[in-house]
Amino acid sequence: MINFSINKTYFLQALNATKRAISSKNAIPILSALKIEVSSQDITLTGSNGQISIENTIPASDENAGLLITSTGSILLEANFFINIVSSLPDITLDFSEIDHHQVVLTSGKSEITLKGKDVEQYPRLQEIETDSPLVLETKLLKSIISETAFAASLQESRPILTGVHMTLNNKEFKAVATDSHRMSQRQVTLDHAANDFDVVIPSKSLREFAGVFTDDIETVEVFFSASQMLFRSEHISFYTRLLEGNYPDTDRLLVKTFETEVTFNTAVLRSAMERAHLISNATQNGTVKLEIVNNGVSAHVNSPEVGKVNEELDTVGQSGEDLTISFNPTYLIDALKALKSEEVLIRFISPVRPFTLTPKDDKEDFIQLITPVRTN
Amino acid sequence: MINFSINKTYFLQALNATKRAISSKNAIPILSALKIEVSSQDITLTGSNGQISIENTIPASDENAGLLITSTGSILLEANFFINIVSSLPDITLDFSEIDHHQVVLTSGKSEITLKGKDVEQYPRLQEIETDSPLVLETKLLKSIISETAFAASLQESRPILTGVHMTLNNKEFKAVATDSHRMSQRQVTLDHAANDFDVVIPSKSLREFAGVFTDDIETVEVFFSASQMLFRSEHISFYTRLLEGNYPDTDRLLVKTFETEVTFNTAVLRSAMERAHLISNATQNGTVKLEIVNNGVSAHVNSPEVGKVNEELDTVGQSGEDLTISFNPTYLIDALKALKSEEVLIRFISPVRPFTLTPKDDKEDFIQLITPVRTN
Repeated sequence: MINFSINKTYFLQALNATKRAISSKNAIPILSALKIEVSSQDITLTGSNGQISIENTIPASDENAGLLITSTGSILLEANFFINIVSSLPDITLDFSEIDHHQVVLTSGKSEITLKGKDVEQYPRLQEIETDSPLVLETKLLKSIISETAFAASLQESRPILTGVHMTLNNKEFKAVATDSHRMSQRQVTLDHAANDFDVVIPSKSLREFAGVFTDDIETVEVFFSASQMLFRSEHISFYTRLLEGNYPDTDRLLVKTFETEVTFNTAVLRSAMERAHLISNATQNGTVKLEIVNNGVSAHVNSPEVGKVNEELDTVGQSGEDLTISFNPTYLIDALKALKSEEVLIRFISPVRPFTLTPKDDKEDFIQLITPVRTN
Repeated sequence: MINFSINKTYFLQALNATKRAISSKNAIPILSALKIEVSSQDITLTGSNGQISIENTIPASDENAGLLITSTGSILLEANFFINIVSSLPDITLDFSEIDHHQVVLTSGKSEITLKGKDVEQYPRLQEIETDSPLVLETKLLKSIISETAFAASLQESRPILTGVHMTLNNKEFKAVATDSHRMSQRQVTLDHAANDFDVVIPSKSLREFAGVFTDDIETVEVFFSASQMLFRSEHISFYTRLLEGNYPDTDRLLVKTFETEVTFNTAVLRSAMERAHLISNATQNGTVKLEIVNNGVSAHVNSPEVGKVNEELDTVGQSGEDLTISFNPTYLIDALKALKSEEVLIRFISPVRPFTLTPKDDKEDFIQLITPVRTN
C-alpha cells in the first residue's frame, strides 16, 4: 500500500496541472477522480475528461520535489476535494499513507486527515500512441500558432469538424487553419527539420488547454499522432487529445491574390475604433459596422436606431486602390486584430460582397485572416 | 441644453462610484438610468436602486476634472451602456453635448457617438433628509465597524430585521450589532464628541457598498438620519440608504460575564485548522467540528462517514478552566476569525449547549462575537 512524503508546494503544482483535464461535472462519474500511481522511481498523476487526458510524472530524482517513496501502489481520489485538502495542510511537507479499504491518511504538522479513495481498477484505460519519430516543436511557437488560429474555430456543434483546427505537415511545411465559415485564420511555418507528414483536425477546446499545461519553462514538446488521438509530450507531462473525424473543408480556394483596395492601419488604433463601434452595433442586436473607403480617407459608421450611432474618421498608415463601402460584424475584426502581434495591419478588399484579407503589414504569406462581409442595401 | 467638456478619467471615476447604486436588473426600469444634472457650478450624477442612492458632485472648481460648462440642463442615460461608451473614447477629454429629442453627442478625438437619452422628469424623486447637527465619523473607523459586524447579519428574508445591522448612539456610546440567530457580532466605540442619540437598523447590503463608495482618501463622513432613511455624506458624495422597520431583538441579554473554560489561540493558526475541518465537514452536508478541551490540550475532530475524517491537535497560547467538549459549524468560527484583526483570540465557554464568546485577547469589551454550538447525540 502506498506510502510517500513530498513537498506540498511541488505536489500542488503537479496536481493543478493535471486537474486541467478533469471536470467535476463529467457524464462518466469516475472521471472526476485523479489517479495516483506510485512506483519506486516516481509518482504519476493522471486526469481525463474523455476528450483530453494529462499524465504528470514527479520523479524521485528531482530534489525540489522532496519525494521519498517507501511503498508503491495505485489509488483513485476525488480530484477537486483532494487538491483542496492538500492545499489546506499546515506544514511544508505531507506524508501520504494508504491504509485498509482504499483509505488514505494525510499527515502534515499536527493535522491528520483520512480520506476515502477508490480502487484504481475502476478507472478507464487510456488509449496508447506509438511514440516513434516525433515531431519536435518549440513550445513558444506552438502556443503562438494556437493563439493565432484556435479562436476562429466554430463554437457550434452543428458542423462538428469546424470546431477543430486543421493542422497539416507536408514536407517541412506546417500549416494550421481554423474557420467558423464567417472568418478564417491560417498560420504557416517552415520547419527546420523533416518529420512524418500528417493531416489532422484537433478540437480547438483541447488546444486552448495546451498553454495552461505547458508552462514557459518547457522549451520543446514532442508531438505524436495515431488515427484517433494526438499526444504532446515534454519531459514530465503527456497531454493527449482525441482528434475530430471527417474531412475538413478546402480552405485554400478562399485565398486570392488580386485585390482592388488596400488600406494599412495601426492595429491598436483600428481595434479601439472597432470596440466603440461594437458597443453601439451590439446594443440591441448583432449589428454591423460600415467602413467607407474614399479617396484619401476611411471612416466607420454604425447606426442602431434604438440606441444611437457612431461616426468616426479612422487614421490610416497607407491607402491605395478603388473606393469601397463594406459592412461587417465588428466582433470578427476585433478578434482578428487581437490575434495579430504586428504593430500595423494590411487589409485588402476585393468587393463589398467578397471576404477581405488581414495580414501583418510586412508578411503577407505566413499569417492570413479572412472575414466575410454582411450584405446591406 | 447641456454642453460641457471634461477629463475622461476623472469623469469615469465619478461614474463608476455612482454606478454602485445602479442595478441593470431593477424591477423599476427607469432606475437602470443615470441622472446627469449640470448647473453652472458643477455636475451631479445620481444613481439609485430603490434601496441605496448615490449622488456624486463634480465641481467646476476642481482643476483635475478639467470641467468646462457652457450650457446647463438635466438628462437620463442608460448607466451601464453610457459608462462603457465613455471608457471606450479615444481622447483624454470628451465633449458632452445635448441635441434635440434628449439625444447626446459625445465627441472625443475623431470619434462622434450619438446616444438616446430620456427626459429627466421620468426619474423618481429621492427622499430628502434634514442635514443639521451631523454625527461626524472617521471613514476608516466606520469601514472597520462595518467589516466587523455586517457579515454576521442574516441573508435570509424570513426575519427581515435580522438582515440589518443595529446601530445605536447613546450619549457618545456608539454600538453596532448584527446577528443571524446562529452567531452575533457587536462592536462598541466611545466617541470624542456628542451628537443626537439614535437607534436604527441599516440593511447590511447597503453597508457592504459603503467601503467601495467612500475611498480611503475621504477622511471623515457626516451621518444623518430620518425616520426611514440614513445619509452618509462627504464633500462630493452623498450615499443614502433606506432603514429597516421593526424592533431589533434585545441582544444584550446574550452577553454573560462568567465562563467555565477559557482558551487563547493564535488567530491565523486556528483559522487554518478550521478551514481544513470545514473542507471535510462540508463535503457531504453542513456538518460540524468537535472541539475537545482537556487538561493542557485542545484538539479538533470531524467525522464525515462518506468522505473521511480530521483529527488535529491545536496549538494554544493559553488555557484555563474546566474540560469541555463542544460541537459547532466551523463556518461561523472562520467568519468570526476573519473579522478579528488581533493576532490572538480569546475564546470563552460556559457549557456545550451555551453560546461561546470570541474577543481579541487584549480587549474583552469593545468587540465581542458569540457563536451558538450544535447539540450532538
